[in-house]
Amino acid sequence: MLYLTVALDAMGGDFGPRVTVPAAVQALSHFPELKVSLVGDQSQIAHQLSLLGCKPNSRLSIVHSDRVISNSEKPSLALRHSVGTSMGITVDLVANGKADACVSAGNTGALMALSRFRLKLLPGIDRPALVSALPTASGKKTWMLDLGANVSSDADSLFQFAVMGAALAEEHLGRPPRVAILNIGAEEIKGNDLVKRCAEMLNQTQAVNYIGYIESNQLLLDVADVIVSDGFVGNVCLKACEGTAQLFIDKLKDRFLASSIKGWIARKLFSDLFTELKTLNPDQYNGASLLGLRGIVIKSHGRADVSACVNAISEAVHEIKRQVPSRISDRLEAVLLERHY
Amino acid sequence: MLYLTVALDAMGGDFGPRVTVPAAVQALSHFPELKVSLVGDQSQIAHQLSLLGCKPNSRLSIVHSDRVISNSEKPSLALRHSVGTSMGITVDLVANGKADACVSAGNTGALMALSRFRLKLLPGIDRPALVSALPTASGKKTWMLDLGANVSSDADSLFQFAVMGAALAEEHLGRPPRVAILNIGAEEIKGNDLVKRCAEMLNQTQAVNYIGYIESNQLLLDVADVIVSDGFVGNVCLKACEGTAQLFIDKLKDRFLASSIKGWIARKLFSDLFTELKTLNPDQYNGASLLGLRGIVIKSHGRADVSACVNAISEAVHEIKRQVPSRISDRLEAVLLERHY
Repeated sequence: MLYLTVALDAMGGDFGPRVTVPAAVQALSHFPELKVSLVGDQSQIAHQLSLLGCKPNSRLSIVHSDRVISNSEKPSLALRHSVGTSMGITVDLVANGKADACVSAGNTGALMALSRFRLKLLPGIDRPALVSALPTASGKKTWMLDLGANVSSDADSLFQFAVMGAALAEEHLGRPPRVAILNIGAEEIKGNDLVKRCAEMLNQTQAVNYIGYIESNQLLLDVADVIVSDGFVGNVCLKACEGTAQLFIDKLKDRFLASSIKGWIARKLFSDLFTELKTLNPDQYNGASLLGLRGIVIKSHGRADVSACVNAISEAVHEIKRQVPSRISDRLEAVLLERHY
Repeated sequence: MLYLTVALDAMGGDFGPRVTVPAAVQALSHFPELKVSLVGDQSQIAHQLSLLGCKPNSRLSIVHSDRVISNSEKPSLALRHSVGTSMGITVDLVANGKADACVSAGNTGALMALSRFRLKLLPGIDRPALVSALPTASGKKTWMLDLGANVSSDADSLFQFAVMGAALAEEHLGRPPRVAILNIGAEEIKGNDLVKRCAEMLNQTQAVNYIGYIESNQLLLDVADVIVSDGFVGNVCLKACEGTAQLFIDKLKDRFLASSIKGWIARKLFSDLFTELKTLNPDQYNGASLLGLRGIVIKSHGRADVSACVNAISEAVHEIKRQVPSRISDRLEAVLLERHY
């Protein structure tokens, strides 16, 4: 069997090995072709494994590291002091070809800086982008990028985000995805120079199925498969959706968990509604991809629980199988060819 | 009695006189000191008044106009062809001192262009800003600006937005409001140059109670009284909240309006919850103010119903009574003095 290897930063995130180790064990049972390298404190990892009645084996190895990049460390500093840290070693396993992908729930800025420095960008890409799937009312997913890998972008970068997002979404959907630009209005005259210039570029390419502007009140309505914006806007927009969804869910939870007769009735009759609404919180998915690199890097939520961490590992497996970085390269090449002829 | 006069663009919005005329009549009964000038087609307005058993009187006048600025018209074109339109005349009534404030539910871009051209900016203001109140989980309001009067801004403008928003919020709250900048992280190192430069300026002034950065998942949690961002980000962020809230409300509505026994129980037991959740949709308020002008201009939603239109008129009355443009000028002067000494 041809194994796929995922390097997992076992120390990253709010819960470290308590979450990452059980997640690795679960993922191994889901994917018979998977191997996991758990990177972090040997004794802590071994202890968590023993609690599950497991130990290292041919599919589950431990790579020891006794240092961790803290969540408060500046990316530039983290980069300088990354040697020997669990995140540094995790990314290096991909850079050295010893793993096919890596997953970390650690410091996002540090992960981006390290990935970019160690893995390098794909040819034709100026900036990496953070992409994640959002739930929609129809039950389908929409991919949104950039979610904050960059605090500002030019039109060329935005165009590259569109190409990368389209490549990723197509590997999930199996058809050319509908690509839209996030804007403050749907009409052509609306928006700032950045979105207008990017729209012009997308209108001129055959490599992306560009469908126009989308407003942010349409994000969760399955109007587009890929939504492109600069990292500041994308991050703010995603968190606005998450915050509003969480507020509504919390209000409902108050009723559902009430010890009153009303609470009892709510739990009996409407638990499916509650479950459905929870699936509409963009926060529910886990496993944002850092696209544009010569390697697969998945960012897991800092507060991800075991099943969320398994999702992040699954996304890594999916991207290895579908060879997402190569698909992005192919598509970029198609765009370049188009421009030359 | 010293009357306050509001000019109301009777033709603006999706429903025109069918909404604006009953709203004017209701507002007159709420505010004994109010006079309203209804600007638009004389016969249509008179007809709507007759349906309510009313006619023009000393507090309710009609200013005839037989032209309307369409919703699809570009602001620059609308500006050129504004003479004689209901919106043009409405704004002119303020410019000529015949009204103390104006309200329109028409073309937003045209209203901004016209207001700026006819009323002029306050000294010290480079750009006007659109501000609106958002609901919060605690039941209090948070004011957010700019919501899209500008598609891009520099740090000076963002700083002026903070000063203007603080002046407006203080007139509502009666205490110095907490002012925050919308950013992609709460830590000082986060964000783009724009928010960092604005934060520096706000840290140096005594005229604004600046409390730091806020992330967009905190928007509806009453963490700040005034939230400042550039118009593109503010617009996207507000619509993201509105879209998510609407999606959740629609899902609940499906259950509440179902003709099943479950629907009946839901209506009996949880109608207060449904009402509470509806009040958490930022879309519920009406009456966004265009700040920074030498006059009071209130933008009503295009699809505002009668009670929403009454809210917009009420906001105009409030701003006249509290002399909001003067309060903004005072505060700007304090900032300038601070810099000189």
